[in-house]
Amino acid sequence: MNGILKGMRVVEGSAFVAVPLAGMTLAQMGAEVIRFDRIEGGLDAGRWPLAPSGNSLFWAGLNKGKKSIAVNMKSPEGQELVTRIITAPGEDAGLFLTNLRVRGWMDYETLSQYRKDLVMVTLMGDRHGNPQVDYTVNPALGIPQMTGPEGLKAPVASALPAWDLIAGNLIVSSLLAAERHRLRKGQGQDVELTLKDVAAATIGHLGLIGDAAVNREERGKCGNSLYGAYGQDFICADGRRVMVIGLTARQWRGLVEMTGTAEEIAALESKTGLDLRDEGNRWKLRHAITGLLGEWFAMRRVEDFAEDFNAKGLTWSVFRTVKEALAEDPDLTDDNPMFSTMTQPGLGTFPVPGSPVTFSATERQPPVPAPALGAHTEEILGDVARLDDTEIAQLFDKGIVQSPGFVARPAA
Amino acid sequence: MNGILKGMRVVEGSAFVAVPLAGMTLAQMGAEVIRFDRIEGGLDAGRWPLAPSGNSLFWAGLNKGKKSIAVNMKSPEGQELVTRIITAPGEDAGLFLTNLRVRGWMDYETLSQYRKDLVMVTLMGDRHGNPQVDYTVNPALGIPQMTGPEGLKAPVASALPAWDLIAGNLIVSSLLAAERHRLRKGQGQDVELTLKDVAAATIGHLGLIGDAAVNREERGKCGNSLYGAYGQDFICADGRRVMVIGLTARQWRGLVEMTGTAEEIAALESKTGLDLRDEGNRWKLRHAITGLLGEWFAMRRVEDFAEDFNAKGLTWSVFRTVKEALAEDPDLTDDNPMFSTMTQPGLGTFPVPGSPVTFSATERQPPVPAPALGAHTEEILGDVARLDDTEIAQLFDKGIVQSPGFVARPAA
Repeated sequence: MNGILKGMRVVEGSAFVAVPLAGMTLAQMGAEVIRFDRIEGGLDAGRWPLAPSGNSLFWAGLNKGKKSIAVNMKSPEGQELVTRIITAPGEDAGLFLTNLRVRGWMDYETLSQYRKDLVMVTLMGDRHGNPQVDYTVNPALGIPQMTGPEGLKAPVASALPAWDLIAGNLIVSSLLAAERHRLRKGQGQDVELTLKDVAAATIGHLGLIGDAAVNREERGKCGNSLYGAYGQDFICADGRRVMVIGLTARQWRGLVEMTGTAEEIAALESKTGLDLRDEGNRWKLRHAITGLLGEWFAMRRVEDFAEDFNAKGLTWSVFRTVKEALAEDPDLTDDNPMFSTMTQPGLGTFPVPGSPVTFSATERQPPVPAPALGAHTEEILGDVARLDDTEIAQLFDKGIVQSPGFVARPAA
Repeated sequence: MNGILKGMRVVEGSAFVAVPLAGMTLAQMGAEVIRFDRIEGGLDAGRWPLAPSGNSLFWAGLNKGKKSIAVNMKSPEGQELVTRIITAPGEDAGLFLTNLRVRGWMDYETLSQYRKDLVMVTLMGDRHGNPQVDYTVNPALGIPQMTGPEGLKAPVASALPAWDLIAGNLIVSSLLAAERHRLRKGQGQDVELTLKDVAAATIGHLGLIGDAAVNREERGKCGNSLYGAYGQDFICADGRRVMVIGLTARQWRGLVEMTGTAEEIAALESKTGLDLRDEGNRWKLRHAITGLLGEWFAMRRVEDFAEDFNAKGLTWSVFRTVKEALAEDPDLTDDNPMFSTMTQPGLGTFPVPGSPVTFSATERQPPVPAPALGAHTEEILGDVARLDDTEIAQLFDKGIVQSPGFVARPAA
């Protein structure tokens, strides 16, 4: 691997989405990332979706390109071993990511005794020490109440663990920022963030807190409309559904022009006295606009306008399920340099993504499958923990580490 | 400002969510971030939500702590000026973020002629050069088809621009990774990513592409259930709705114990022959489990069990609107060190978030409000572009730059 972070070594003690995604993002940028787990596999070893074999597609997806070691951390020897791995020497090592809340042997105070310039990034649930997951943070901060069809009272949960994904990426930034500081000042540090704070800060950044504080109306659900300007889904003559956007002035003019509705739009402006070049007026009149555009889409198949829309530079897309996208969209195939179709033992054959980022200074790194649990145990014990063959043999004999090839399974 | 990135200077030419968020994230970590805009303000200058004054809460939220300069970029002098700012000398400068697709004077090939070690990160819509926004990428990749109540056929759009938020954070990581490379090798580079690739990679990482490829069933909507294990919303006796999680074995045991449903759960296991210690079986039997737990919640107010749930370490939350959260949740007040309640001219008084990341090596940086458009024009012309007073006066006279205090308004 010759990625942009080549030479960096990161150790990860994690489960689920955010921290595994952070480690994998670093691995796909060329860092050596070592994930340690319990002998029986992490809490996420059996997370759905599963392949027909019962192996976790989720785990395989979020741990690509890492090295794996499985350790009995209930034993003092196991704790000592993990400590050695986290604090192993190396100018570009001593970087540790975790969302496991282990006080004592695995906290920053203890670990930094073994390596003063350790950078440790810890993700927690909330600032009170309560556990939180994406599924609890999201309702607590109001997103499900803004999601779903207009008029529906019930909250609608998000299908995507957005806060986890955002937090995972922020963990990467935080690690790189702290490592940059260490390169300059020689100083390690304890870096902390919570999933709930990530979500709370983000809704603040988007103006939702300000909106709730200074505006009288509660921001409600708006179905599939683009909030605050114009954007809407339409069903076409072939039964397919499209999303079209009129957020910027250019997008809006293009949409009106391509649908030949300039006269009707002008009449709507006259009737209401609202200038639809103003995005807020488009939002206020969105239902009327949708009424004017609906017939145009209802009379056309997607193929009737797709080329023209693209030539005009309109911002639009077709609705697809993931399966349909996989079957139809070249962006999810090897036609896209980000993907490599590969056969993975116990999982199947499908397109696997590398990093979405292209760095001109290095070659694109093809994706590397996730390891079997414990697959790199011997290598890590020798090269990182710097144990000799006798010590390694003893750790295996005592069951402190597990032979490679043990398959990750859900913990009972 | 003494943040972890103190001394770094980043220039941003942007609009909307992803790149502004990236710049702001860097600013909240202590970097000097200069956003340049058109004289009339960027495409996002009037993005909703708005304050009663008509000023954009969205813009203010995503541009906190930046310096602002407004430039007429249609003029050769304006283009030269922006080029000077982007490529200005400084060991920790020459870092440029953009999602504006300007070929010619503002592309990497041209800009890097003025500063060989320039690091430029560009976010595009998709790899074909088509424009894409969160609202089009999301339906194209299947998320709305997985969102919403079980049985509903229509797709449900996301209320949160998750892909933009993820891309914004990945832009920060990419910039830091490329700058790290430059520190070591002296080499700048052109870094590119597309919003659609960010989304496509992420659904791959989460196992959704593998799921679609190897499993026969289309993953459908599952309402407010936690996919693949157990988690559900319940309405309590006080009319409030809670989300409770049984994802890990520990969470599940705790939930059964606290609700006193061990016998009923055991009976369900006997009847079905499915061991509910297996998360997949919890998913398969989620409706039956919800039936068993529902009455318990229906008979209790949130206050009847909240303390016990927290003491037991259960993972759960109350559903709130953003307004309710702002009124009730101390995590959205100055009780949380991340927030500072401030009065911002033209916006109002409300809690404003700083960075969710705490770096032990530096003091927490309080949030800094967004600038008025062009507020730092003179400072940037002098300190960054290194122009003398005569040159600066000429730029103002010719209208190449705008006097500070000009208020950001929607572009017609």
